[in-house]
Amino acid sequence: MVKKHLAVAIPASVIADTPHLREKTSKIGYIGRAAAIFRVNEIIVYADNPKIEQNVDLDLIATLLAYMETPQYLRKHLFGLKPELQYAGILPPLRTPHHPLEGRIRDLKVGEYREGVAISKTEDRSLIDIGVEKPAIIQQTQVDMNKRLTVKVTKIGNEVEAKIATREEIPQYWGYIVSVERRSMFALLESGEFDLTVATSKLASSFKKTAERLEQKWSKAKTPLILFGAPTRGLYEIAKDEGANLNGVVDFVLNTVPNQGTETVRTEEALLATLAVFNIQFDN
Amino acid sequence: MVKKHLAVAIPASVIADTPHLREKTSKIGYIGRAAAIFRVNEIIVYADNPKIEQNVDLDLIATLLAYMETPQYLRKHLFGLKPELQYAGILPPLRTPHHPLEGRIRDLKVGEYREGVAISKTEDRSLIDIGVEKPAIIQQTQVDMNKRLTVKVTKIGNEVEAKIATREEIPQYWGYIVSVERRSMFALLESGEFDLTVATSKLASSFKKTAERLEQKWSKAKTPLILFGAPTRGLYEIAKDEGANLNGVVDFVLNTVPNQGTETVRTEEALLATLAVFNIQFDN
Repeated sequence: MVKKHLAVAIPASVIADTPHLREKTSKIGYIGRAAAIFRVNEIIVYADNPKIEQNVDLDLIATLLAYMETPQYLRKHLFGLKPELQYAGILPPLRTPHHPLEGRIRDLKVGEYREGVAISKTEDRSLIDIGVEKPAIIQQTQVDMNKRLTVKVTKIGNEVEAKIATREEIPQYWGYIVSVERRSMFALLESGEFDLTVATSKLASSFKKTAERLEQKWSKAKTPLILFGAPTRGLYEIAKDEGANLNGVVDFVLNTVPNQGTETVRTEEALLATLAVFNIQFDN
Repeated sequence: MVKKHLAVAIPASVIADTPHLREKTSKIGYIGRAAAIFRVNEIIVYADNPKIEQNVDLDLIATLLAYMETPQYLRKHLFGLKPELQYAGILPPLRTPHHPLEGRIRDLKVGEYREGVAISKTEDRSLIDIGVEKPAIIQQTQVDMNKRLTVKVTKIGNEVEAKIATREEIPQYWGYIVSVERRSMFALLESGEFDLTVATSKLASSFKKTAERLEQKWSKAKTPLILFGAPTRGLYEIAKDEGANLNGVVDFVLNTVPNQGTETVRTEEALLATLAVFNIQFDN
């Protein structure tokens, strides 16, 4: 199995039927959790309804997902007191390896990776807050202030020394990035970023048959995308409104919740269910 | 495949780490939804920690799940103004066939099933509120007042006539019942109500191998039970506290979320993920 960059796309209207920010926050919390449980690398929030202005919802969802994915000790650096974060306190913790519970130098280990932000620099080095008593030192100044970066701890003495690392070199799951596609689902699919695209729909036929054809392609895919619709407007309808036929613009359409007992499955439910099924069917 | 009575058991401490009633309500909402999506027939809430008093939590979870499963037009009859229902307004609708959106006689069909409650009776008949303008008449008086029952519409004229029906005769998914096991997980397993018991645990070995052995038994089981632990205390630990070894008291232990990206999977997440996997693996 090749190493994957797994992306999922969710529509802006996922929170449209939830009137209060507190429950919107809670719903986005479930989405972030589902993504982290199943090692999703990128969550894309896309505009799914050209008839209405969706920028506020797109930004709200993206901000909350990014906040949730940020280690607690970096949140103050990276997020101000935004009104959309009013209920961020109810977001469940991700409990991923990049959100360490340890906040002391004596618990650090050489070779450990930490997320950090540069808080100052001199002529030849930068100081990085990595969530312990003292900032770590890196022998490099080509870093942006107050932007996230990943470092690897190289020495622990009077000072903590570290070097910049890439996400690719880290063996564990290291969180997701968040992107926004403000144009449309179609624009996202046209971007050419994905080598395999899978849509979920309750109108699709039997899972098992499609799964057999998908399995081989999935095992070879490096940048697969799983696309989710909104409960009130499924992906066939969203595609149709954009003048497209869903079957023509994605590689596979799957029903991952056959024989559903409820009239609709909400996006956050479909996301968790689909990722659970993919995890068992294709990754074991 | 035999017709199943599928039961799931969730621990009282599922809401223990959520301080506010509003988020407890939201979490229970996800549990009720997951159960309905995957056609669960019974949700059992069990006491999982003998060291603490859990009756308040057991009752809260059971009340909210039962409220959610009750068609909207019967909720006032069956639930008073209980303080634990303060945030019931945020519970998502189930959208199951037994929660019809139609509330008028002209939309009723002969042969249709409806949930109802008896609101009065005369010598030879009873009046049942089935959520339309006028109560339906059944030619029977052996019914409890203000208790739920299921009826089948037999005639629509000046009056709506109906007869009592059983859940078993209804072809569609017709909601879940809620039970409480106040003693322990072990007491639940000892009850003899289940012909197949499956526990979920992140400590269990590879899903695929166990699934092959489970598949046959699952297809024959009439009263299977899937058991869930709490995020802070898995089923092995819960069993151990009761002096039992999990492997010895259930038929199968499965990990339905192999390679999880997060340290823990919450009960409501494990429930949805597990039911999604079972739905694809065993029911198609």
